[in-house]
Amino acid sequence: MKVLIINAGSSSCKYQLLEMDTRTVLCSGLVERIGCSTGCLTHKNFSGDRQEQIVREHAFPTHVKGMEEAIALLTDSKVGGVKDKSEIVAIGHRVLHGGEFITDTVLVDAHVKDIIREHFVLGPLHNPANLMGIEVAEKLFPGIPNVAVFDTEFGMGMPEEAFMYALPYQLYEDLKIRRYGFHGTSHKYIAHKTAEYLGKPLKELRSVTMHLGNGSSMTCVKDGKCFDTSMGLTPLEGLVMGTRCGSVDPAIVPFVMEKKGLSPAEADRLMNKESGLLGLCGYTDMRDVHSQIAAGNKRAELALKILVRSVKKMLGAYVALLEGKVDAMVFTAGIGENDNITRAKVCYGLEYLGVKLDEAENNTRKAGARAISTPDSKIPVLIIPTNEELQIAMATVEIIARK
Amino acid sequence: MKVLIINAGSSSCKYQLLEMDTRTVLCSGLVERIGCSTGCLTHKNFSGDRQEQIVREHAFPTHVKGMEEAIALLTDSKVGGVKDKSEIVAIGHRVLHGGEFITDTVLVDAHVKDIIREHFVLGPLHNPANLMGIEVAEKLFPGIPNVAVFDTEFGMGMPEEAFMYALPYQLYEDLKIRRYGFHGTSHKYIAHKTAEYLGKPLKELRSVTMHLGNGSSMTCVKDGKCFDTSMGLTPLEGLVMGTRCGSVDPAIVPFVMEKKGLSPAEADRLMNKESGLLGLCGYTDMRDVHSQIAAGNKRAELALKILVRSVKKMLGAYVALLEGKVDAMVFTAGIGENDNITRAKVCYGLEYLGVKLDEAENNTRKAGARAISTPDSKIPVLIIPTNEELQIAMATVEIIARK
Repeated sequence: MKVLIINAGSSSCKYQLLEMDTRTVLCSGLVERIGCSTGCLTHKNFSGDRQEQIVREHAFPTHVKGMEEAIALLTDSKVGGVKDKSEIVAIGHRVLHGGEFITDTVLVDAHVKDIIREHFVLGPLHNPANLMGIEVAEKLFPGIPNVAVFDTEFGMGMPEEAFMYALPYQLYEDLKIRRYGFHGTSHKYIAHKTAEYLGKPLKELRSVTMHLGNGSSMTCVKDGKCFDTSMGLTPLEGLVMGTRCGSVDPAIVPFVMEKKGLSPAEADRLMNKESGLLGLCGYTDMRDVHSQIAAGNKRAELALKILVRSVKKMLGAYVALLEGKVDAMVFTAGIGENDNITRAKVCYGLEYLGVKLDEAENNTRKAGARAISTPDSKIPVLIIPTNEELQIAMATVEIIARK
Repeated sequence: MKVLIINAGSSSCKYQLLEMDTRTVLCSGLVERIGCSTGCLTHKNFSGDRQEQIVREHAFPTHVKGMEEAIALLTDSKVGGVKDKSEIVAIGHRVLHGGEFITDTVLVDAHVKDIIREHFVLGPLHNPANLMGIEVAEKLFPGIPNVAVFDTEFGMGMPEEAFMYALPYQLYEDLKIRRYGFHGTSHKYIAHKTAEYLGKPLKELRSVTMHLGNGSSMTCVKDGKCFDTSMGLTPLEGLVMGTRCGSVDPAIVPFVMEKKGLSPAEADRLMNKESGLLGLCGYTDMRDVHSQIAAGNKRAELALKILVRSVKKMLGAYVALLEGKVDAMVFTAGIGENDNITRAKVCYGLEYLGVKLDEAENNTRKAGARAISTPDSKIPVLIIPTNEELQIAMATVEIIARK
């Protein structure tokens, strides 16, 4: 059973073709710089003996044109994963924001599209692109069902005291200002995988997930559901990230706007694109930060300290919310899966919780889910690789099966 | 040795006259609505057998006029605390913001006044009034030394990774945007009192102070110094308060400004004056919130839950920063000293840290510093009444003694 996953951005379109019987990726690809004078399509095929890659550089005036070319490659006898596009049983779409109306994966219909459209305001960069992705798929794959998987879905399980801000209540009623949480697909996937790893029913799982990448968020899981999460109305809140400041005194915003003469959009950009590791030390990729630290860059050292401190504080906060009853602490995503230095710094000093990191294990690179704590660690510390595409594909298959 | 404490606001002036030999308050007073058509001076005298109160309602066109009348009362043979104002050896002033230049209590001179003036931008409501208070005192008490005690002082001990935000580094260089922390006088006083209560050298103290009042902040104390604190560039950040939202997704600010057409000043006002408990349930005083909850008001219940959650998360975060090695958790200020319900909710579920609240003790009202945890609680939970005026007076005396 083959499922296509589409993640459409404003000027890009990522896709992945999966064989769900074996849960393997057949092809993946990315169309970049759609609408620009020079675009680029990178297509990878994993179905043969060795990985093949095709790169095509030319203009893609629209998402339709980009996806048409991608479909030609997906159905190509040499680098494709299907003989004909009709072999694809369903298309799963990643959609950023479903607001409060959609709390579960859904089959796309006119009503769902209306809701995605109604939430352009809360996901101004992503929702319009996500809707376009769905419309392109409807046009290019007539008759094949489209399924929408929302990045806010997992966060919708939060209790009211976790999702409400202490702002005028009317802002919630009028503008739906509340904590939604993001990276929901990843956090949901990791919660399932953690329960599986521990051999525990998901319903009983209490854990803290640290999704640390270029964008980072943490989730406190209680009874298998999201009990709190660090991202809020937008993906800015919470941890220090590659280019995002995370939580700061909100009074800084009007202060900086006034002093620097910034518009609301410019203030938003400053916090989302010019802050975080980049703002502190000029490097956004953690690997660069580490090599700068090795070269004696004090600003890079400070940036790492600040990032680690934000994770450690959130970890302590979530442990308190779980009343210390924590089945596992889980690292995932780019930094979480690959950066042993950051992991060690986050876990340093957690002996009061009975956490014992196995340094040798932490310093070893291995594939798959595994523990990096010692066998006698009271709380296991795990690395579980995330797989958002697989999670979207599984959710898509589940919806199709219900039809 | 008599010391006068002055805390000048934009249209008010609080004062307290202390006998430092016995550390007792002789008189206290408040001039309100200075510059308005009807002002009010309330003067209290504690030096006799029973408390006497004088209330005078008329216009006070300037701070000078208000303080002149206060001095007349302070030197009055019936309700005053001194025969002549020359008996006052020094005047201690509470000043909000000393920026990065002043990290200790100082004797006021032209340079100190310049620095207070330079930081009008960081304390726009308080610093101009504080400076005016100093100038009024210089005029009315010629020859008597003035001492400035800064509310940011205790926070200046924080390490760089605690005070720097993950914003463009240039904002720190240009605008001095960093975490300063406030309620410093209270946090410093409580740190001293906690060490004293535990019979431990201050230099070795590791504690968490919860200053919960209409304005609330928490401080993580390590080696007797501020290791982290919840308020930031301004007193808005951190916990949910009476009318302040505390930490929220900073992207909410430009979002609300755009949707509601607010100016930076209006956004600041919304977060500082219309949010917190007030924004959530319409009541700002915790006693009202409790009676509303008793009357079945669900919004008030939600407001309390959100406030408690913000304290509990910060507590967990600070315990993590202290690596679980915590000598005491201390409640202080209006809510912290008097609200057994909030205290119990904050401490609920802290058994993983070995914290055991003594419910009967928590539910009993008593004066003075005391433990509300059981004798076998691994971390003592204390109530220590704060006394900012006494702390300012002690700091003032210390400076005068050095002269």
